[in-house]
Amino acid sequence: MCSVTAKRDLSPQQNRPHYCAICKRILEILINANGTYVSGEHMSSELGISRAAVWKHIKILEGEGYEIESTSGIGYRMVVIPDVLDSKTILYGLKTLRFGHQLEIYGTIDSTNSRAKRLALDEASEGTVVIADTQSAGRGRLDRIWVSPAKKGLWLSVILRPSIKPERAPELTVLAAIATVRALENFAGLNASIKWPNDVVINGKKLCGILAESQAEPDVIRSIVMGIGINVNMQRDDFPDELKDLATSLFIEKDKVFSRRELLLILLENFEAIYDEYLKNNDLSPFLEFYKSRSVTLGRNVKVIARTSSFEGFALDIDKDGALLVRECDGSIRKILSADVSVRGESGYV
Amino acid sequence: MCSVTAKRDLSPQQNRPHYCAICKRILEILINANGTYVSGEHMSSELGISRAAVWKHIKILEGEGYEIESTSGIGYRMVVIPDVLDSKTILYGLKTLRFGHQLEIYGTIDSTNSRAKRLALDEASEGTVVIADTQSAGRGRLDRIWVSPAKKGLWLSVILRPSIKPERAPELTVLAAIATVRALENFAGLNASIKWPNDVVINGKKLCGILAESQAEPDVIRSIVMGIGINVNMQRDDFPDELKDLATSLFIEKDKVFSRRELLLILLENFEAIYDEYLKNNDLSPFLEFYKSRSVTLGRNVKVIARTSSFEGFALDIDKDGALLVRECDGSIRKILSADVSVRGESGYV
Repeated sequence: MCSVTAKRDLSPQQNRPHYCAICKRILEILINANGTYVSGEHMSSELGISRAAVWKHIKILEGEGYEIESTSGIGYRMVVIPDVLDSKTILYGLKTLRFGHQLEIYGTIDSTNSRAKRLALDEASEGTVVIADTQSAGRGRLDRIWVSPAKKGLWLSVILRPSIKPERAPELTVLAAIATVRALENFAGLNASIKWPNDVVINGKKLCGILAESQAEPDVIRSIVMGIGINVNMQRDDFPDELKDLATSLFIEKDKVFSRRELLLILLENFEAIYDEYLKNNDLSPFLEFYKSRSVTLGRNVKVIARTSSFEGFALDIDKDGALLVRECDGSIRKILSADVSVRGESGYV
Repeated sequence: MCSVTAKRDLSPQQNRPHYCAICKRILEILINANGTYVSGEHMSSELGISRAAVWKHIKILEGEGYEIESTSGIGYRMVVIPDVLDSKTILYGLKTLRFGHQLEIYGTIDSTNSRAKRLALDEASEGTVVIADTQSAGRGRLDRIWVSPAKKGLWLSVILRPSIKPERAPELTVLAAIATVRALENFAGLNASIKWPNDVVINGKKLCGILAESQAEPDVIRSIVMGIGINVNMQRDDFPDELKDLATSLFIEKDKVFSRRELLLILLENFEAIYDEYLKNNDLSPFLEFYKSRSVTLGRNVKVIARTSSFEGFALDIDKDGALLVRECDGSIRKILSADVSVRGESGYV
């Protein structure tokens, strides 16, 4: 009577379950009821099928992870939506005005940033989000590989169109890091820190990476694609050997499985709020106090490794544009716009 | 026996004449002969057609603007290739190693920069060129309209992939301006000047505009699409009224029709040479002396109009990264990375 299949192609929503029209309609009715009961009789007449048939479709949905409470004489109500990145359930939960309202969801994609960059060239609106269960060619800064095991993390890209000069692009990475830290706090009660410029860490291990890719003319930024990767339900064995001691996940930290969907909703909400405040003031400064308070880089001896040279110094401050100010041995202060920065710990630089 | 038609679609080479296979082969033979004679007998046996048939195809090509000299008892030789932007004749004339070897030619396109940006995302190699007879949505800085009448100018975009930090992007505009000025000098004996940052002018009128669009990560530029528009054979009436006193063309300056194809070849040659030297030294400084010597901005009172403010001052110097250094009334020096800069003339700022 009804089947659930997973398509395998490279179009959005691939690998999403494909429900029959009746299942889809039942989902819609129950989700719109917002946690209240809907009688079997109502659904039966709405759908033009028997109450027994309604029940059969409910069972199929339960098999897909939906928890639907059924109370005799009252009806059905949605209790738990499974952690499937599905546009319907995401759009239903969004509390943002723009972020995530345009949404592309992939089972597998090369890289959400690559796709979002193309969408940005095609005039996609600000706040458009690309998300995937897994990336076959996920990237971090400087073409480093980003490991993104299927359905175990949140791998997404948001298109921003701030009307600012290109040299201010690094400010957006600061905002994204703050939004991620705040979302992790709201969502999982985690007190994460920021390793300049773009890592969110906990106990020195990487929980999240951020990669901003900008498209600009000399006078103005046309788009910034903000890629955010958060290790959500990865276990230690999900990381390759060389990362096992360097990376962590929410699951590892809290010994608990988290909903990617819920985290996505909270992240987008935090990011939009922070971004809109930034646009309103056209200024990063109001955010720097929080950023500095969470920095594991400031006030430490650091090694700055740029592409052609490296030097050691003391991480003095974050400049008003998000740059790192490092004091060298001779007392001079260097402004670092981008580089790898290792912090000196007890056993050397990490 | 043979027809020449113009296709109208949005694929590359649209509006190019479509020659029959025999005409194409004759063109190839004559062009490869590099200005020397090829006997009718040779062509006849090469093509498997009669010498009379060869003659008929030669007449068709002459009708398309090719000047082919025919000497009884000796044969045919190519004297003049018409000013058609055709991949075969362009590739034949290229003296570059990379620039222009990957080539897309359009009759009409929205904007060569838009197309080149897409190609750059698709991993097109450095030196890829997009060129069009006309642009339906040609743009300058800050979304200003760029007028590009059909076949009267050189509208092209070159993809660059310099392995440099994003903040150095403006240096490439300096290089493109120098390459254009040098090409105009070699090609038309014109002594053009540069109005900071991106206009090539002659007697205060705009001859050429340059628009660099970059795609970058925090640490490195991924691509720069360098759009160059040169007014070649435009007459005064080809400009809209509001530009008639502000813009000029090679034709207006020299009272002579110029070959866009020849100018393209010389421009690419100059640009590649300058760009390669820049990459080798990883430094803009060796080019600044020439740039400054051609600047109409330096040593003048200027008005700097940025997006949110404007001020007057004295254009003191070009910094080593191509930025303009302006001394304000109070003696302080401001470094300008991007802005509109008007130069004070006898009748106010222009």
